[in-house]
Amino acid sequence: MILEKIKSPKDLKKVNKKDLPQLALEVKERILDVVSKNGGHLASNLGVIDLTIALHYVYDSPKDKIVWDVGHQCYAHKLLTGRQKEFENIRKEGGIPGFTNRFESEHDPFGAGHASTSISAALGMACSEDIKGSDGKAVAIIGDGALTGGMALEGLNNAGYLQKDILVILNDNRMSISDNVGALSETTKRIKNTKAYKEVKNDYHQIEKMCPASKKKYLENLKKHLYSLFTPEVVFTKLGFDYTGPIDGHNILKLIKTLETLKKKKGPKMLHIITKKGKGYKHAEDDSKSFHGVSCFNLRTGKGSKKKCELKTYSDSVGDILVKLGEKDKRIVTISAAMAKGCGLEPFQNKFPDRFFDVGIAEQHAVTFAAGLASQGMIPYVALYSTFLQRAYDQVLHDIALQKLPVIIGVDRAGICGADGATHNGQFDISFLASIPNLIICAPKDENEVQDLIYSAIKYKLPVAIRYPRGYGPGVCIEEKKNFIPIGKSEILKKGKDIVIIGYGSTVDLAMCAATELEDYGIKATVINARFAKPIDENMIKYAKKIGKVVVVEENTFIGGLGSMIRQKLNNSGTYFANVALPDKFVEHGDAKVMRDKNGVSIKNIVKACKKLYKK
Amino acid sequence: MILEKIKSPKDLKKVNKKDLPQLALEVKERILDVVSKNGGHLASNLGVIDLTIALHYVYDSPKDKIVWDVGHQCYAHKLLTGRQKEFENIRKEGGIPGFTNRFESEHDPFGAGHASTSISAALGMACSEDIKGSDGKAVAIIGDGALTGGMALEGLNNAGYLQKDILVILNDNRMSISDNVGALSETTKRIKNTKAYKEVKNDYHQIEKMCPASKKKYLENLKKHLYSLFTPEVVFTKLGFDYTGPIDGHNILKLIKTLETLKKKKGPKMLHIITKKGKGYKHAEDDSKSFHGVSCFNLRTGKGSKKKCELKTYSDSVGDILVKLGEKDKRIVTISAAMAKGCGLEPFQNKFPDRFFDVGIAEQHAVTFAAGLASQGMIPYVALYSTFLQRAYDQVLHDIALQKLPVIIGVDRAGICGADGATHNGQFDISFLASIPNLIICAPKDENEVQDLIYSAIKYKLPVAIRYPRGYGPGVCIEEKKNFIPIGKSEILKKGKDIVIIGYGSTVDLAMCAATELEDYGIKATVINARFAKPIDENMIKYAKKIGKVVVVEENTFIGGLGSMIRQKLNNSGTYFANVALPDKFVEHGDAKVMRDKNGVSIKNIVKACKKLYKK
Repeated sequence: MILEKIKSPKDLKKVNKKDLPQLALEVKERILDVVSKNGGHLASNLGVIDLTIALHYVYDSPKDKIVWDVGHQCYAHKLLTGRQKEFENIRKEGGIPGFTNRFESEHDPFGAGHASTSISAALGMACSEDIKGSDGKAVAIIGDGALTGGMALEGLNNAGYLQKDILVILNDNRMSISDNVGALSETTKRIKNTKAYKEVKNDYHQIEKMCPASKKKYLENLKKHLYSLFTPEVVFTKLGFDYTGPIDGHNILKLIKTLETLKKKKGPKMLHIITKKGKGYKHAEDDSKSFHGVSCFNLRTGKGSKKKCELKTYSDSVGDILVKLGEKDKRIVTISAAMAKGCGLEPFQNKFPDRFFDVGIAEQHAVTFAAGLASQGMIPYVALYSTFLQRAYDQVLHDIALQKLPVIIGVDRAGICGADGATHNGQFDISFLASIPNLIICAPKDENEVQDLIYSAIKYKLPVAIRYPRGYGPGVCIEEKKNFIPIGKSEILKKGKDIVIIGYGSTVDLAMCAATELEDYGIKATVINARFAKPIDENMIKYAKKIGKVVVVEENTFIGGLGSMIRQKLNNSGTYFANVALPDKFVEHGDAKVMRDKNGVSIKNIVKACKKLYKK
Repeated sequence: MILEKIKSPKDLKKVNKKDLPQLALEVKERILDVVSKNGGHLASNLGVIDLTIALHYVYDSPKDKIVWDVGHQCYAHKLLTGRQKEFENIRKEGGIPGFTNRFESEHDPFGAGHASTSISAALGMACSEDIKGSDGKAVAIIGDGALTGGMALEGLNNAGYLQKDILVILNDNRMSISDNVGALSETTKRIKNTKAYKEVKNDYHQIEKMCPASKKKYLENLKKHLYSLFTPEVVFTKLGFDYTGPIDGHNILKLIKTLETLKKKKGPKMLHIITKKGKGYKHAEDDSKSFHGVSCFNLRTGKGSKKKCELKTYSDSVGDILVKLGEKDKRIVTISAAMAKGCGLEPFQNKFPDRFFDVGIAEQHAVTFAAGLASQGMIPYVALYSTFLQRAYDQVLHDIALQKLPVIIGVDRAGICGADGATHNGQFDISFLASIPNLIICAPKDENEVQDLIYSAIKYKLPVAIRYPRGYGPGVCIEEKKNFIPIGKSEILKKGKDIVIIGYGSTVDLAMCAATELEDYGIKATVINARFAKPIDENMIKYAKKIGKVVVVEENTFIGGLGSMIRQKLNNSGTYFANVALPDKFVEHGDAKVMRDKNGVSIKNIVKACKKLYKK
């Protein structure tokens, strides 16, 4: 085993070049072994093993800074930088996270989790080296998907202008999470059918015919440049980058040679490599979408170990509901930012291809594009993960809410999400959305209620955000009949005279369970499904004031969350109040339920809070 | 007068083409007349008068949708679309706002105020027309500055892919608000010095020498294409746009002819026009930066009417402080997103050009770039207007706070900003920042305290946001000696036994005035300068609980603001509480003080709240 001997990149440099492919094989087997047990990002990690080896062979981390965009493809990097033991427990509670992390290793100069940040961060590092007069290199590795994110383009534009010493490696796997959808990736095939291309070809042919042999080399050179007009690279050249590629991202020796050359060059450089997601594991090569992020699976068959569940995820339920509504109302359009599968929109996409838009990793554009659609009478449903909606905060406020445009925002993956950890949890959406005027914010207690809320949101003709968690709902059947829920209306699920427990979305079930448990202590609790975080039901407040003791349960930070807004409504009323919510910290990775319990959003904690208030 | 007769674009179409330059002159005079009295955006409006006339001459608004990016250049558009009378009171309280507005006219299909949204919105409209099977056109007009914003690039990329019918007009005034700083705008001059350019030139020359006359035309054609390799337009072609230009943006007849041709073409088209900011008004042409946004001024001299004030704006004070600190500490770097002048950073830029970065209109990149700098030991100060910081919410959370990187964010223009209205007020920053873990949030009561807070923030070595208002501070001298303020420490400014008034930043002065006024009613108030919104001083809470009556005053929405966080701390303590804060709505344009009063953040309201609590 070569891998075992590599405690740091220094050891890697001692390996004979001819043995590097063997090392790549060992890294692959190690990743497959652990991911098949722990789950994790598979396809993207298999795709960059060769690149990672070449990078650490040529560059000197931590003096040279290697910045992985998104960071979910850092497994080989972790294995080669002294974290082989810790890798065993990657993504598990107490183990290391599945992304790069500044607190974990000096070889992770920048943490990530959201796409498109690497160029900006690496550029900051390059400028820092410059100011300090030191000569560490800055390398950003970014996928073709992440390159469609606006901030990556901001970074490229600024890097080209500043002309600092930075290498951007475009890891082109022609995929991103869903198919890459930007114009940049489309350009080659389309442009060959253009008039311009045909003209140039003809003009060149005419000149070539009469060109004497002595001048052939000049013409050949011109041809190369003319050809570049019809490939995407010219865009990067325009932006001030020295462009190399595309080269095979699985040829380690070629990668090393190229990186060695580039390391000596000054200024902004781009190396374009072509890789295959899932490289070397057939199941993942064949279906890299499914193998983007996986739960544990059988290595031989590639199949998950879970029994096929009759339950549907919230996302898939939402997708089905939108198809049904979309059949009857042609104004309904759906929008995804490279997450059609994750957000359950594939059935809609298949059924109504003209009314579905995957805009790529571009959440800002997704939201304002939806606002544009709404301004002309369409009914857009934009599905975004809570954590990625953070990218479009200003657009929700400035383009939707200020203009009162009837866009429905599906806030998917709200609350604790599990093994992906801090960068993927939806801990903040109630807080950052609640202060936005004109916005209606709600959450369903189950699958049928999400149908009622979407159905009602369409009728409100106002901006609405609907929040739902990752994974399975309680398993309630979606009924044929849709019920209109008036704006802001809560519902009482259970009556009791001693205390009021208010649940919201995923915590309604917890509230119900806690109420049952409280009966053992002789405490009779009312349980209210708030349904709306904005506006807050005044009847619910009245009821709470009457009982005089209230516990609000939410899967969101307590700062600026539902509890804080209800407390404001109870102001000076003398009502005793407790808030069971997430703490003011980033929740780490680990099993979602465990992390929820550990961070206080649990039946046990609700019971405890109720018992404490009951004594007052 | 031709202008007077134009009640709608239909009337414009009846004007004889040869009279259009006269109309442009009348529009210019009208704009100069009103802006010299009301203040407003001048240079950008003068720059697009000719384009606006041509657009309404060719396109049929409101059937065709004309979307102005940022929207501050819409004055001619307003004058030509039935708003001549209302224009008299533009930007005044009760009058029409200085930006496009959906609620104001059917000719404003989309409101704006923040840069870079127009392409996304217009693309949504184009898709909507497509789904509806109607044939209205969608036109986005975007400046070269706004094009450096990530979401504009996301929009371009998506528009090129979708190939819908959209016209993007690139209004290239080679300026944006500060000088345009992106690589795209730099590319032409730099590329002519590259090896590639020189090679191509030489190769071409070699071929040309032996080219027979009969083949010259083919070679000429190739030359045109080769030349395009060295101009920016090829980038747009790559993105799938049909590119036309650049043409003179002040030649109305040429504009009309070109637009008529483009109107007939299908698919995404880009028209590149060159305009001059301030066109036709010498003072503005000569100094378009100063004439970007102006207060009232003398038309003849171009000078403001205000007496030169000894006071410095908060922004300028911050700029001076950073220069002083930067002299002693070379790790201090400053970053602006196209607002070096507005944020007071020009002295720093002039003194330390290597440690100042204007990244263009690219707030997301600005913040993560700062994080990259901080990750390598620099001390970055990123100055952003509160309202534009909204664009970088995710980056503050994900790239700064999660990684605990010591970036100082200068939250400029926090609170009500005045005549620019809803899109420019900083009503939300406490709310959207407060829920972010690891972030310290503070605000100074005066110019000297902002020095102490910046000085202290550097020592904290943690992420810090410092909030300050637009315009002048109270005029306190900045002392030589800097005082270290421990994290979270409030200060008691005045003691009184009856009630506690807590002020924050700009409202500390209001709190002091209210306390004085309350003495007339026999009410003795304690006034506390909270200084920190996060963490909240536990001693302040203890003090407040002891007195038992608290009024928190802040220039931020009450939802998720300082009041909400202090109320959380007072939970179940029986302390009576009131929050004097902005309401849950977008505050309109008008004089800042008037709008503050009108929206409840006033001495009068503090006194009222205190008297009410006093009676309890």
